[in-house]
Amino acid sequence: MDYLTGKTNKEDLDISDILEGDYEGKEVIVNGAIHKIRDMGDVAFVILRKREGLVQTVYEDGVTGISLKELQEEATVEVKGVVAKEERAPHGFEVRLREVKVLSRPTEAMPIAINKWKMNTSLETKLDLRPLSLRNVKERAKFRIQEGIIRGFRDFLHEQGFTEIHSPKIGARGAEGGANLFRLEYFHKHAVLAQSPQFYKQMMVGVFDRVFEAAPVFRAEKHNTKRHLNEYTSLDFEMGYIDSFQDIMEMETGFLQYTMELLQKEYEKELKLLDVKLPKVDEIPQVRFDEAKELVAEKYDRPIRNPYDLDPEEETLIGQYFKEEMDADFVFVTHYPSRKRPFYAMDDPANPAVTLSFDLLFHGLEITTGGQRIHDYQTLVDKIEDRGMTQEGMEQYMLIFKHGMPPHGGLGIGLERLTMKLLGEENVRETTLFPRDLSRLEP
Amino acid sequence: MDYLTGKTNKEDLDISDILEGDYEGKEVIVNGAIHKIRDMGDVAFVILRKREGLVQTVYEDGVTGISLKELQEEATVEVKGVVAKEERAPHGFEVRLREVKVLSRPTEAMPIAINKWKMNTSLETKLDLRPLSLRNVKERAKFRIQEGIIRGFRDFLHEQGFTEIHSPKIGARGAEGGANLFRLEYFHKHAVLAQSPQFYKQMMVGVFDRVFEAAPVFRAEKHNTKRHLNEYTSLDFEMGYIDSFQDIMEMETGFLQYTMELLQKEYEKELKLLDVKLPKVDEIPQVRFDEAKELVAEKYDRPIRNPYDLDPEEETLIGQYFKEEMDADFVFVTHYPSRKRPFYAMDDPANPAVTLSFDLLFHGLEITTGGQRIHDYQTLVDKIEDRGMTQEGMEQYMLIFKHGMPPHGGLGIGLERLTMKLLGEENVRETTLFPRDLSRLEP
Repeated sequence: MDYLTGKTNKEDLDISDILEGDYEGKEVIVNGAIHKIRDMGDVAFVILRKREGLVQTVYEDGVTGISLKELQEEATVEVKGVVAKEERAPHGFEVRLREVKVLSRPTEAMPIAINKWKMNTSLETKLDLRPLSLRNVKERAKFRIQEGIIRGFRDFLHEQGFTEIHSPKIGARGAEGGANLFRLEYFHKHAVLAQSPQFYKQMMVGVFDRVFEAAPVFRAEKHNTKRHLNEYTSLDFEMGYIDSFQDIMEMETGFLQYTMELLQKEYEKELKLLDVKLPKVDEIPQVRFDEAKELVAEKYDRPIRNPYDLDPEEETLIGQYFKEEMDADFVFVTHYPSRKRPFYAMDDPANPAVTLSFDLLFHGLEITTGGQRIHDYQTLVDKIEDRGMTQEGMEQYMLIFKHGMPPHGGLGIGLERLTMKLLGEENVRETTLFPRDLSRLEP
Repeated sequence: MDYLTGKTNKEDLDISDILEGDYEGKEVIVNGAIHKIRDMGDVAFVILRKREGLVQTVYEDGVTGISLKELQEEATVEVKGVVAKEERAPHGFEVRLREVKVLSRPTEAMPIAINKWKMNTSLETKLDLRPLSLRNVKERAKFRIQEGIIRGFRDFLHEQGFTEIHSPKIGARGAEGGANLFRLEYFHKHAVLAQSPQFYKQMMVGVFDRVFEAAPVFRAEKHNTKRHLNEYTSLDFEMGYIDSFQDIMEMETGFLQYTMELLQKEYEKELKLLDVKLPKVDEIPQVRFDEAKELVAEKYDRPIRNPYDLDPEEETLIGQYFKEEMDADFVFVTHYPSRKRPFYAMDDPANPAVTLSFDLLFHGLEITTGGQRIHDYQTLVDKIEDRGMTQEGMEQYMLIFKHGMPPHGGLGIGLERLTMKLLGEENVRETTLFPRDLSRLEP
């Protein structure tokens, strides 16, 4: 009988193995995709692409036991060679090739120059050829940063006593109702895709006090803008026993601080590659919704058109204002009008026309919506009635308030938007692996 | 201007704070839901439920600054009191109440006895009242264990150089095709929900060499069994530059070893509460599909009915065989017949009727399917043709093979099934927060 023991005796080395070990002058085995071949005559530089970066290998006629003609870009190989210091090579070393084993070969030449430092390709083409364009080292670096953000989110909240949950994405109705629901047939019943895990995370506050979820959400919105997606990854948390909705904003600030530190520490290479300067998160100003409106109207000489909502241009100007006035990258805008917030938002006892809620703007773009929720059963019943809504289909949600819920609140962060602003991108599709929008359902 | 600094000066303590600090005889603030009240006359035990467990607080007439009548089960409270050693209380301490602030009150009595140690309630009722039944400490403990498994999965793979990805759940077509796709309308186009991230994780192997995803998948299967769900959380990984499909099984074994250690270390309380004995993962036997069939047929005197597939009973018997014969909790069954595996599975060069694939059985239940994939373009084209399939709609998937893919493979693990077997549960719904099945779309 053969057994698996969880141990492998793979001999191939990664870039970090070579950098951390003492391999100069020694023979190593390295695998990777041939990213680029620069043929100099008797010698050729064969650049390998590995998950940790690029490795320069050197082909020499008569020394390397294969003909250079056998090698092509995007072939995958396992090579044997000797490590040598080389200041001009990536990571300061190169591998002088002795043997090359070709593992696989492409059948066609690349339709886009993914091995150029910066691809000169439209976003449309990049997205059409997404599985290939992502092989470009700058393109893929964006998604390493994205991984860092989500790791930061989970690890920080775990430290803070939050439990991770997995709520269903198919349901009988949406949390917010409305027109932006994708509908499907579910064994002869009508079903919808979840717009947010809102109801479920509130239910779970009654169970675990503090919960989070990082999962896809679906919005059938017909917006075709640079900041909208019809499917995105939402970073959600919900916490009980809050003293006020300030606790939620402090928790988000803590998450941002933790995450920027994590990125600085573990994703330095990618930050450098993409020339990213991390934003200031040591302190984040907060401003009331109506005050923000006035500040911007005054400074930029712009009349207030709609007192109940912020239009995208207004958000941009608020971002600009706080950058100019106090060098702030982020700003919390608080106390949004009740009529623009969902029924479960808690109204401000001091002024029921506004809610104990907030948006977080990052360089003028909303990346988070959050706030305190109503936890008292009768208050919720009254608000549903006031809005002319019905409790139908929400019975199980209402149940948690009937049976006791602590004061609580939470938020949702758009992962792709946060990544986009962090990287200084202009279109959220740049920081979405395989975006879904009005016209794009593939790849 | 007010600023958020990520710091809070909350005064309330958690159970671990009290256990780790020196609080005996000192006054503390604790919040929680009133789980149970045991009225003994002049004294009452008011048990609080917190995320870390139960806390015994003691109400005394004349000492506690509130009337006991003011307190109800499932009210949420913030209490002030003095910590005292008490061997018979949970965690070995109690809090003698001075002040109680009621934060919220239930409006109705609980329809199920969630504060009983073991709820005497049918699965159906538990699921109908899921937001409430999960407040039971044994019920919720299952999902802490589930959190531990997914943490183990991510943390282990991260250590092994895997990058986390987020692939879209809405797409133009499914990875496996077939009848079990949920269909929806996507802005006047036909779309489906992802059965698995298969194509995307393979695409991403060309980008990051090693990737993983832990996300929902959707299967419109009309199975109404104890082990099927129509939406579940799939733990997927895919790795390039493998020497053989043994590498994938070794990686999974490593994940299981890492995770059992994590559970032992950080989820000991929950394991004890649920009386779970962790399975043996130091070495896991592997057996060929046809051999497993024969072993079981012989030992249990059971004729082989279908040589191409394992029926559930056969899986159970294989599990039983390996438990009895070598005290193994897990067994890898390898070399499944090609005709029962998807087109992208790599056939065994030594016998093309079988594939370089495997299932992992845990106490006789399949919790993982995996294997090596075809990486050569022409081989894939031929296999698609042999099967009478078309490449239509798979153009972008085929692209990655045209442009070079390393030898690779991967697997998918059903999180809820793994949790179920680990906890010795008989129905996968027991270990699914909000299950979706043929008849259940709510809560």
